[in-house]
Amino acid sequence: MSELFGPLFAPARLREAVSARAWVAAMLEAEAALAAAEAEAGVIPAAAAAAIAGAGAIDPAALGEAAVASGTPVVPLVEALRERVGAEHAEHVHHGATSQDIVDTAAMLVARRARALIVEELDAVARACAALAREHAATAMAGRTLLQQALPVTFGLKAAGWLDATLDARAGLLRTRLDAQLGGAAGTLAALGDAGPAVAEDFARRLGLGAPALPWHTARGRVAELGAALAVTAGTTGKLGLDLVLLAQSEVAEVVAGAGASSAMPHKRNPGGAVRARACALRVPPLAALLMGAMAQEHERAAGAWQAEWEPLGEALGLTGGAAAGAREALEDLEIRPDAMRAHLDALLAAPGVAGGTGAAALFVQRALSRAEEELGA
Amino acid sequence: MSELFGPLFAPARLREAVSARAWVAAMLEAEAALAAAEAEAGVIPAAAAAAIAGAGAIDPAALGEAAVASGTPVVPLVEALRERVGAEHAEHVHHGATSQDIVDTAAMLVARRARALIVEELDAVARACAALAREHAATAMAGRTLLQQALPVTFGLKAAGWLDATLDARAGLLRTRLDAQLGGAAGTLAALGDAGPAVAEDFARRLGLGAPALPWHTARGRVAELGAALAVTAGTTGKLGLDLVLLAQSEVAEVVAGAGASSAMPHKRNPGGAVRARACALRVPPLAALLMGAMAQEHERAAGAWQAEWEPLGEALGLTGGAAAGAREALEDLEIRPDAMRAHLDALLAAPGVAGGTGAAALFVQRALSRAEEELGA
Amino acid sequence: MSELFGPLFAPARLREAVSARAWVAAMLEAEAALAAAEAEAGVIPAAAAAAIAGAGAIDPAALGEAAVASGTPVVPLVEALRERVGAEHAEHVHHGATSQDIVDTAAMLVARRARALIVEELDAVARACAALAREHAATAMAGRTLLQQALPVTFGLKAAGWLDATLDARAGLLRTRLDAQLGGAAGTLAALGDAGPAVAEDFARRLGLGAPALPWHTARGRVAELGAALAVTAGTTGKLGLDLVLLAQSEVAEVVAGAGASSAMPHKRNPGGAVRARACALRVPPLAALLMGAMAQEHERAAGAWQAEWEPLGEALGLTGGAAAGAREALEDLEIRPDAMRAHLDALLAAPGVAGGTGAAALFVQRALSRAEEELGA
Amino acid sequence: MSELFGPLFAPARLREAVSARAWVAAMLEAEAALAAAEAEAGVIPAAAAAAIAGAGAIDPAALGEAAVASGTPVVPLVEALRERVGAEHAEHVHHGATSQDIVDTAAMLVARRARALIVEELDAVARACAALAREHAATAMAGRTLLQQALPVTFGLKAAGWLDATLDARAGLLRTRLDAQLGGAAGTLAALGDAGPAVAEDFARRLGLGAPALPWHTARGRVAELGAALAVTAGTTGKLGLDLVLLAQSEVAEVVAGAGASSAMPHKRNPGGAVRARACALRVPPLAALLMGAMAQEHERAAGAWQAEWEPLGEALGLTGGAAAGAREALEDLEIRPDAMRAHLDALLAAPGVAGGTGAAALFVQRALSRAEEELGA
Repeated sequence: MSELFGPLFAPARLREAVSARAWVAAMLEAEAALAAAEAEAGVIPAAAAAAIAGAGAIDPAALGEAAVASGTPVVPLVEALRERVGAEHAEHVHHGATSQDIVDTAAMLVARRARALIVEELDAVARACAALAREHAATAMAGRTLLQQALPVTFGLKAAGWLDATLDARAGLLRTRLDAQLGGAAGTLAALGDAGPAVAEDFARRLGLGAPALPWHTARGRVAELGAALAVTAGTTGKLGLDLVLLAQSEVAEVVAGAGASSAMPHKRNPGGAVRARACALRVPPLAALLMGAMAQEHERAAGAWQAEWEPLGEALGLTGGAAAGAREALEDLEIRPDAMRAHLDALLAAPGVAGGTGAAALFVQRALSRAEEELGA
Repeated sequence: MSELFGPLFAPARLREAVSARAWVAAMLEAEAALAAAEAEAGVIPAAAAAAIAGAGAIDPAALGEAAVASGTPVVPLVEALRERVGAEHAEHVHHGATSQDIVDTAAMLVARRARALIVEELDAVARACAALAREHAATAMAGRTLLQQALPVTFGLKAAGWLDATLDARAGLLRTRLDAQLGGAAGTLAALGDAGPAVAEDFARRLGLGAPALPWHTARGRVAELGAALAVTAGTTGKLGLDLVLLAQSEVAEVVAGAGASSAMPHKRNPGGAVRARACALRVPPLAALLMGAMAQEHERAAGAWQAEWEPLGEALGLTGGAAAGAREALEDLEIRPDAMRAHLDALLAAPGVAGGTGAAALFVQRALSRAEEELGA
Repeated sequence: MSELFGPLFAPARLREAVSARAWVAAMLEAEAALAAAEAEAGVIPAAAAAAIAGAGAIDPAALGEAAVASGTPVVPLVEALRERVGAEHAEHVHHGATSQDIVDTAAMLVARRARALIVEELDAVARACAALAREHAATAMAGRTLLQQALPVTFGLKAAGWLDATLDARAGLLRTRLDAQLGGAAGTLAALGDAGPAVAEDFARRLGLGAPALPWHTARGRVAELGAALAVTAGTTGKLGLDLVLLAQSEVAEVVAGAGASSAMPHKRNPGGAVRARACALRVPPLAALLMGAMAQEHERAAGAWQAEWEPLGEALGLTGGAAAGAREALEDLEIRPDAMRAHLDALLAAPGVAGGTGAAALFVQRALSRAEEELGA
Repeated sequence: MSELFGPLFAPARLREAVSARAWVAAMLEAEAALAAAEAEAGVIPAAAAAAIAGAGAIDPAALGEAAVASGTPVVPLVEALRERVGAEHAEHVHHGATSQDIVDTAAMLVARRARALIVEELDAVARACAALAREHAATAMAGRTLLQQALPVTFGLKAAGWLDATLDARAGLLRTRLDAQLGGAAGTLAALGDAGPAVAEDFARRLGLGAPALPWHTARGRVAELGAALAVTAGTTGKLGLDLVLLAQSEVAEVVAGAGASSAMPHKRNPGGAVRARACALRVPPLAALLMGAMAQEHERAAGAWQAEWEPLGEALGLTGGAAAGAREALEDLEIRPDAMRAHLDALLAAPGVAGGTGAAALFVQRALSRAEEELGA
């Protein structure tokens, strides 16, 4: 995400979580965990592991430039680490690992942190929806199908629908597997001898990631599933944004959804957060499609498809967070206008043959609220 | 899928499962279950439900043509049903439901049947992979990264990787929620009075579908998740097909992957199943992206995005089945050439500095086999 | 497109133009043109060419089933042709060609016919827009940004914008290259000896397709560009549909855009054509993305990516035609309500600081009309 | 593109051309041209235009942060400009324009510069292909279909195919319309009075962009077409990369395509440029699909879809340049091994029934070379 446009899409802490700096930190964390696990297993000296853990930060831009020759940032990262730890420990840096082990593990660390931030945003969205559902459980309004007024609903039911969908998306996101990667050059851990499997498990444990049964260098279901869960989450908050944009239209005006300034037109109140949610939501499915399509990875390491994952995964994380944050902001700012809802509904009910009840709306609201209580706590 | 090209992509029973005929049958099944549940609840007479259940098949093409005026096939379907059940029962047909209830429920019924067939194909893929992994646990070959020979692996490890990924895809697919849809015109079940929620649950139970807490007319996470699980499955079998195509190259020839006839070139043995798996796999991610993007559905019924889901969902099911079937056929036909593997590996090992062990390969094979045994039975 | 859902998306003649029957007819036409060109060049006897041209139709479904073994419908098509022309001419059928020559050429023939139908729809859209632009050049209304009323525009300007974009899309579509394909098994025309290049040119000329400088078996820019032009066309008519759906909202009601029946809700007037335009428009970009992604085709014939093009190309053609037809229908049915436009605008102009002029709107309308006159005739 | 991964995908000057800094410079250039055109038309004082033109650079990051409140970077940019030009000229800054005028015009300026760099890369690719085609017009090798050796071709023909496709992509890219945008708040230029149309034309002329007949705020064909041309270009160079990766396989070894270091495996020579071309090529079609899908823009300014275009357009430009640069580097490094080609071909020709000629290959090479000479000069 660019420094110019990024802030328009994702909150600062999400941009930071998927930034170049965060990726480099995660790669260093992976190298340190690898060394620690190897020291624990007696494969390398404990002093080497300590030196690697203490090597300090590395400038992402310099790493990026130095990565071109080899096609991977891990080659210059390992060089830099070796230089820092000195001749004594140099040979123990990155021992038995392949570049992909470090990049994939770093990706999962980045994803874990970004996911936690996204879930925070979703929690706030869900709480805001729950509050609206509760407060407006009996606020009647016109339901609209194909953008035509159809029959009565309640605003509470609408909010309950957003809530239930948000809880679904949240659950789906939390279900994604964030597993460490450690397989060595050909996925056999051969360079670690008998210690390989134990090192791999300890490596994952130290990082707080899952320990997969097998290395997954070219089995990219995890990444594609993560992309999909992000797209579903973005889509869920994007739908919320869409409803708000529509309800906030000048002619509908059943909500006021933000006070985005329009320099040229002071009479307007642009629904900024909702627009942001929609803009972000539009951008994630193509990224998810890329991650899905990139599952076609050759043999033991792909010649292009793996590399194509890196930036889109980070963007999908950031933009999904942006979609959720946009929805949250829109909900936080939201002003509900029950009178306008009522007026539209009254006009609708005056049409011949339009029935007036809201059926199970209150029950549905209750169900969504109960679920929210269960999954989010009080 | 067209009658011309369809057979090249998906097996007959999968095409049938997602055919127009299957959709119409599923819509009729939904109408029948609705009537039965309403009769059970005392909302309509049992005789009406019986008449509706016995109404017989309806020609899809006629329905399609008649659907244009209203924009939904359910309007003419209900008309046809009313005509068939006679004046006495006509008013009880489709009672309290909206067109989307029937189409969405039918989509889930279609998905359930197609999913079962896909899982059958995946089971066969997994069993074939397991057999290969077991048999070739010690068959050494060159591992390849960026399509360059790198270090030794075993063919068993390669097969174990396919196996583990296939089991992942299978589990993901089985985790998708196939829920009935019943909300009535505005999602409140208002037309069913107090009986609404009970009818909705009984409706789902009768169809063997899940009963959602709320109607999901414009909360499309279920559909998008299903699309994603299909894309991941297709991607998994597509990767398998890619590896086979590469191993079957004239210059590699470590496997013979099919005997597709080439009219003009009898010396060739085209890897038909693997090519089919790849072709299908390429087609699913864009469909999944569509389903994800189509989550932006307005208010209580979408003006375009919902309608855009129908055919792509069926295609994604059929093509994923096709990808799995292609992989299965390729595996069933597969001839392994350990001598060619050995020869390439020996040449590789002759290079200076190339180490010879296969590390934890055998352990990884064992893990994948254990998992297969657990999840697929003996 | 399925017989159930297809009619909801595309007009009958477009569905027919991209149907299995049309593909088979185009393949037969390609074989006949090949034979005729070869007879002209003295490569095969004129009597054989005549027999091939007179071979009659072939059932697409039978062809599809028979295609599975070889992975291409051309193998059984050639077998059927050989049987029909008899032992005397059999060897002259498909002489020197490869399956891909016939499928690709057929695809271009299918595309040419479908494109002509799409252009007809676009012409009607453009004429309808021109009529609206002319009639409503002075009909003032509120311009809307971010779905908030902003400043005055005219309905004529809005229609002129649709018109200009439609003419752009039309021009882009007509610019796509529809070239014949003839390269033989490896793209060298080797089996035709010295006559190859002349046969290839005559082949293209007879079919009314362009004659490319080189065979394009794995140079798929033509197909991807066609997909892109279709997506842009669908997007253009989809935007028109979106504006109509929004203007037709119950609360806006500045247009009435169709009278789609709602069985349950007789008070509603669903904007059927506009919804169809939107639904179709949503489906084309993913297909275009597939065609673009499928450009990664190996060596002289692809192992999956080429095959993946076939159905999506037909669908993209049909759906783009459906989007254009939906827009046309919506415009034909359109009822404009200048009073409602005026009322909204008056309320807007009452806000402090909102200026009232429509600037160059009339000039822009005139420019679009002049262009339409030039490109479409009177 | 991130500072970490960006260098792995696109050359420095391309990254710079689509950087945040370049966007801000282009926005400032647009404001300056607007002021100059308005001064020329007597709408604002010449001194104000001079002050605006001399306002100096603005920090992108600060602008990005300040943009969040309004949802557009132009609001703080205009504020900054007003501050810099002082009270005397402040009111003349951004006179009569809307934010979208500046962002869209800046996008076209960014696109023009990036396109020129992409075309330079394509020229180099084409020249390298032409040299190979000329030199190897008679170098026979095995043509491969479905990755199986099929019949003879020449390496010159393969290079000629890449060349012709590259020239196609180049022509398509140069055909894209890069038009200025100037419509004012509602697309009528109302705030400029009678001077509007003349100012708009002069504005475009000063920037070296096309002058559109109408503002195109929500007619996004230009952007979608640009995205498509980029995807086709990326696909073309990606196919070239794919062929090289396949030819460079250890077992094929008909080319050596780069000397990418593998830290762990010194015996490997990774085909770096070709892998980069493929990785970039995979990423562009989803971005193009986004731009196509984002054509659904509401009324006079979109609530999300327009905003969603910004970053993907820049990425598509940068990545397409990266794909072309990767292909260029791969070709520059390329070592051809005619002996290996000959050996594979001889083995193929030993199979019964395999004919040996290369038909029109030499003619096709000659055609591609003639075209290159015509379009690229000597």
